[in-house]
Amino acid sequence: MPAPALAPLSTPSNGTVPTAGNLFTLENRVFCCYLFWATVLVAKMLLMSLLTALQRFRYKLLALVPLKLRRKIFPNEEDLFFKNIEVQFDDPHVERVRRAHRNDMENILPYFIMALIYISTNPNQDVACNLFRVASVARIVHTLVYAVYPVPQPSRILAFGTMLLITFYMAAVVALRTLSFI
Amino acid sequence: MPAPALAPLSTPSNGTVPTAGNLFTLENRVFCCYLFWATVLVAKMLLMSLLTALQRFRYKLLALVPLKLRRKIFPNEEDLFFKNIEVQFDDPHVERVRRAHRNDMENILPYFIMALIYISTNPNQDVACNLFRVASVARIVHTLVYAVYPVPQPSRILAFGTMLLITFYMAAVVALRTLSFI
Amino acid sequence: MPAPALAPLSTPSNGTVPTAGNLFTLENRVFCCYLFWATVLVAKMLLMSLLTALQRFRYKLLALVPLKLRRKIFPNEEDLFFKNIEVQFDDPHVERVRRAHRNDMENILPYFIMALIYISTNPNQDVACNLFRVASVARIVHTLVYAVYPVPQPSRILAFGTMLLITFYMAAVVALRTLSFI
Repeated sequence: MPAPALAPLSTPSNGTVPTAGNLFTLENRVFCCYLFWATVLVAKMLLMSLLTALQRFRYKLLALVPLKLRRKIFPNEEDLFFKNIEVQFDDPHVERVRRAHRNDMENILPYFIMALIYISTNPNQDVACNLFRVASVARIVHTLVYAVYPVPQPSRILAFGTMLLITFYMAAVVALRTLSFI
Repeated sequence: MPAPALAPLSTPSNGTVPTAGNLFTLENRVFCCYLFWATVLVAKMLLMSLLTALQRFRYKLLALVPLKLRRKIFPNEEDLFFKNIEVQFDDPHVERVRRAHRNDMENILPYFIMALIYISTNPNQDVACNLFRVASVARIVHTLVYAVYPVPQPSRILAFGTMLLITFYMAAVVALRTLSFI
Repeated sequence: MPAPALAPLSTPSNGTVPTAGNLFTLENRVFCCYLFWATVLVAKMLLMSLLTALQRFRYKLLALVPLKLRRKIFPNEEDLFFKNIEVQFDDPHVERVRRAHRNDMENILPYFIMALIYISTNPNQDVACNLFRVASVARIVHTLVYAVYPVPQPSRILAFGTMLLITFYMAAVVALRTLSFI
């Protein structure tokens, strides 16, 4: 589907420059691209919660086998369905997923805000869309090589650095544009 | 107060469809509803910081009673007003509030972004408002049964799952709407 | 550069009140001020990741000196370039930066959303801009006295409380304005 050039309906009809119109509508191709990839990343982040729970339940099933084999990883007392399992916090598989999840929060959540306000500067459409795509795919790769199937470095650092650099680039663009409002 | 049907002033006067107008104004009932409940959730999250501090100070007062009874839970050296209290990280009450707070960050912050961009798809007003209400109340219940007064499962899982499912629903709506911008 | 009074181009030309126009454009001085300071805070948060990595690499260099002097602080197996270094999680310098980073997430990320939706209530321009400035500078001070060069209390509590109070103020303004949409 060819994307409309730039939100003609959302701008006042007096021929103002595009920046005067509303850039946060479905008629702005850049905003739509942001919507799609932000949605993908939100879903990915929420799946981390489920992945953590899955790792925890994997061991809950072990409670049915002899006591010595169980690992005890539920952080809250009320989560212990079997009272002879102690509360523990240091299961390596669970902690790995939790670190990956925390890393997501540290990087993706600021990116959401940064990319959203970057759209308001009315950037070049192709540049902006491709930045959103590359950053999002990089974070999906990051999760795969960190939490799902650990892969030797530097795969994780490269995936991590890609979104970081893109966010810094957007920050530079926005900051230069609004420097007079310091 | 009857809510205005849909932002007539914010749309250009040439009779465009509602999606062409600006949905992020106080004249859009859905946006107002989002504003109110997002504000409630932001305030709730910030109160978690204060609840953590409160749990910590509860023990600081104990420093006035004999040494053996004190619990030592301040993570930073400079927070130790009484130098004979050691730095410690594993007070169960403080850690419980911190886990609840982290769970808030993992779920509410992505929800903020997801719900905000969901508004841009101009959803059915009643559906959207009720989703905001149910999700927000569920998270307040989650905090109560997790951090304030621990309640046996599955109360917490139900509260947790409610916002999770609502966020996934919004994600599906937005993703389907913007799938051509992949 | 004198800021334009209030987005004349982005409002429909039929003389509606300012709230009817689009407040999320570069012609709204309040939004521009938000853009600049949000960008600064995003950059600051991302630098925390790099600061953590820097603290970790500081000790990686120590791996070149005798084994007894090394500290072992890499949380993931694949990060251990030198196999005789064990995985460890409790280096005090790294943990301090991580706590500061977590505190950033707990406070700055909700502030981003709160300040953004606060703009939609069309607040007094000078009040809003100064709130953004004070809150942002306070958080930069917070990072300096927490993670970079630890300073005795109450410096950190004051810096922490400043953004907290500003966020609560914005929350009160927005909640009162949208109370009828509960």
